[in-house]
Amino acid sequence: MTVKVGLVGTGTVGGGCIDVFNAHTADFKTRYGIDVELVRVCARTSEGAEAHGVPELYTHDWHNITTDPEIDVVIELIGGTTTAKEVVCEALENGKHVVTANKALLAAFGEEIEALAAEHGCWLALEASVGGGIPIIGPLKHSLTANEITSILGIVNGTTNYMLTRMAAEGMSYEDVLADAQEKGYAEADPTADVDGLDAAAKIAILASIAFNTRVTQDQVHAEGIRSITTADLAAAADMGYCVKLLASASRTEEGIDVRVHPAMVPLDHPLAMVNGVYNAIYVEGDFVGQTMFFGQGAGSHATASAVMGDVLEIARHVQAGTAPVQENTYADTLPFVSTDDLVTRAYIRFKVEERPGILAAMSAVFAEHGVSVHSVIQRGQNEADTAELVYVTHSAREGALRATLDDIAKLDHVLVDPDPTLIRVIK
Amino acid sequence: MTVKVGLVGTGTVGGGCIDVFNAHTADFKTRYGIDVELVRVCARTSEGAEAHGVPELYTHDWHNITTDPEIDVVIELIGGTTTAKEVVCEALENGKHVVTANKALLAAFGEEIEALAAEHGCWLALEASVGGGIPIIGPLKHSLTANEITSILGIVNGTTNYMLTRMAAEGMSYEDVLADAQEKGYAEADPTADVDGLDAAAKIAILASIAFNTRVTQDQVHAEGIRSITTADLAAAADMGYCVKLLASASRTEEGIDVRVHPAMVPLDHPLAMVNGVYNAIYVEGDFVGQTMFFGQGAGSHATASAVMGDVLEIARHVQAGTAPVQENTYADTLPFVSTDDLVTRAYIRFKVEERPGILAAMSAVFAEHGVSVHSVIQRGQNEADTAELVYVTHSAREGALRATLDDIAKLDHVLVDPDPTLIRVIK
Repeated sequence: MTVKVGLVGTGTVGGGCIDVFNAHTADFKTRYGIDVELVRVCARTSEGAEAHGVPELYTHDWHNITTDPEIDVVIELIGGTTTAKEVVCEALENGKHVVTANKALLAAFGEEIEALAAEHGCWLALEASVGGGIPIIGPLKHSLTANEITSILGIVNGTTNYMLTRMAAEGMSYEDVLADAQEKGYAEADPTADVDGLDAAAKIAILASIAFNTRVTQDQVHAEGIRSITTADLAAAADMGYCVKLLASASRTEEGIDVRVHPAMVPLDHPLAMVNGVYNAIYVEGDFVGQTMFFGQGAGSHATASAVMGDVLEIARHVQAGTAPVQENTYADTLPFVSTDDLVTRAYIRFKVEERPGILAAMSAVFAEHGVSVHSVIQRGQNEADTAELVYVTHSAREGALRATLDDIAKLDHVLVDPDPTLIRVIK
Repeated sequence: MTVKVGLVGTGTVGGGCIDVFNAHTADFKTRYGIDVELVRVCARTSEGAEAHGVPELYTHDWHNITTDPEIDVVIELIGGTTTAKEVVCEALENGKHVVTANKALLAAFGEEIEALAAEHGCWLALEASVGGGIPIIGPLKHSLTANEITSILGIVNGTTNYMLTRMAAEGMSYEDVLADAQEKGYAEADPTADVDGLDAAAKIAILASIAFNTRVTQDQVHAEGIRSITTADLAAAADMGYCVKLLASASRTEEGIDVRVHPAMVPLDHPLAMVNGVYNAIYVEGDFVGQTMFFGQGAGSHATASAVMGDVLEIARHVQAGTAPVQENTYADTLPFVSTDDLVTRAYIRFKVEERPGILAAMSAVFAEHGVSVHSVIQRGQNEADTAELVYVTHSAREGALRATLDDIAKLDHVLVDPDPTLIRVIK
């Protein structure tokens, strides 16, 4: 039998999937005995279908894919949580297996969509939703199941990693590098999802759900982005032997789980420190396997298409063999979230202040009041008028105490709140 | 139903598998709905069974596992290609699924054993045979199937990587570090399989077979080990901005495939350069995914047990669901091996010579005669009597020309052949 595939979305990744079909459909049969065929593609315009050489497969209406009895597998690559959700749900309701790269959809409605897939005996595959081309969902759901996963630490947003890498290497400002990333197509016109850490939050919610066998949704993930990071911060980090990365992390503690996204200072000899540009990496620690890392292109047409099409082929293999989906996670562990206030971290904090007698003493008093011990304080750079930038590095302190310190210092006279004080956690 | 597992071999990895059962059997049921039970373990003595708390499961005779109608899955962890082959074959002939970490067995008899598994409708799983705990077989067989894999470059032998790391970091001699590795249990009393690159050759044969869909056996892999590497070579590499790693590589060219193991100089900014100690990493390049890397502990009790037990759980899932094995590789591509003579590489070559007038000129003439262009030549270190070490770094040259140069120079008067000249390829 030939497993027939319909594709909804012919943009960057969808176009890449068409390229995979064009390049390797015959190979899949000779190499793996997998007989797949792309039979229809849908988008708002036929431009993508034409550009990738399949104009004859174009349809304007996605219902022509989700309701076509001939189609076995639907690939959803339009993104977002509105039409994409309708496409995915209607496909599943019609008994079609679904492959999606849609992290936002899965991180918000994963439970509902997985239940629908189970109800209709369908495969729902999502390798491409995290880490672009990097195999990470597969290893977590299969190879690493013998472990209790203790933590995941990932650079999972290529846009912000590209920006931070160029800011550090070339001293470019946040604004300039964002404009450059937008021009290159690495960042959206509205960069919010990337620079505010929301895309990374969706991805770590998906990984944490699988790793901890506990449903985690995007809105449960504490997310801080990179808008307030300056070249001065990156220079200070380098002086200290660190680089700054936007990290998505998920940790298991005795009390429960902690899932979050924020910029962090990573020691230069840490494997994640060498992950530059649009590359992504996910560091996974398990009680038996110890430390493992998965590295590759976190975005891009062909890399992400590799992950999507890997899922399509895997499903096709099983459809041909007549095997039904097997149960993966039960999500029955329902671990509580720990209060981030009690987590302990070292911190790098930058304040902009007006230079006035007593300001340092006043700030020191606030640190002391909250029990935050200061490792070093330096004044960096030259500022306009009579302002100065003060950079504190603390010893290990409770997150709650650090935040309270920041809040109280921001209330002091002569401490400027535009820009806001910057807090960057320092990881070991 | 409960999927019943028998374990043959209770040494380092086998003991780790018992630990996984002890730690997580209940979790597997609640987390994944997988119901597995370790019902019998076999070894030459009951020591392992006792040490890991399951003396009641011990049997002295492996036939009690391979022929027991109650047992569904057999784990083979005794190593070697004699009794291990009998265990695996008898298990398959009795309809039992097999999980093995035995790279030597698979790299020699993979075709025969896979055919037997297919004939009896059994799963044969081998994640643990390469890279210890690192998920690499799974990603190659599943997540990355949409790609034509163009190359694999791996540090897949933890023993030699540990030795090279310590030699470079501490200036320890080959002999001292080998003795240390043997004492720590990282190296066998007979270290041949590790230090001569045979273990790495078996592993890259397995990876190349999957990646190129072409049967590659260990004896088809050109292997050079690390016996001739000295601390002087490592110091010279560092001066040049490189480190020395024992690399297992498999590349696809227009003419065919090249699969080999040899020490190589790796630039310090290459991701493989940061893989130190007993860690392993496998760098995989595909036509769609681009560059990916998989990193983790390449050996050790618990890390390797993670891979073995991941396979056991995956099989158990399918056995419970009543699904038969699906076809993976057909191995139908049957790509030819390219002649390594025509491959082009830069090289580091060290000769030991007696200091005599004209020796440098004579050596230069041999390089010129074979069309090998020399980038630099330096004399290193202080030697006894009137001998000197000459270190050449060449421009890109054909392997055939490099080997002919080495052979002809070794024939010159005053060039010493004990130790042999050292050739280390320099990778980009």
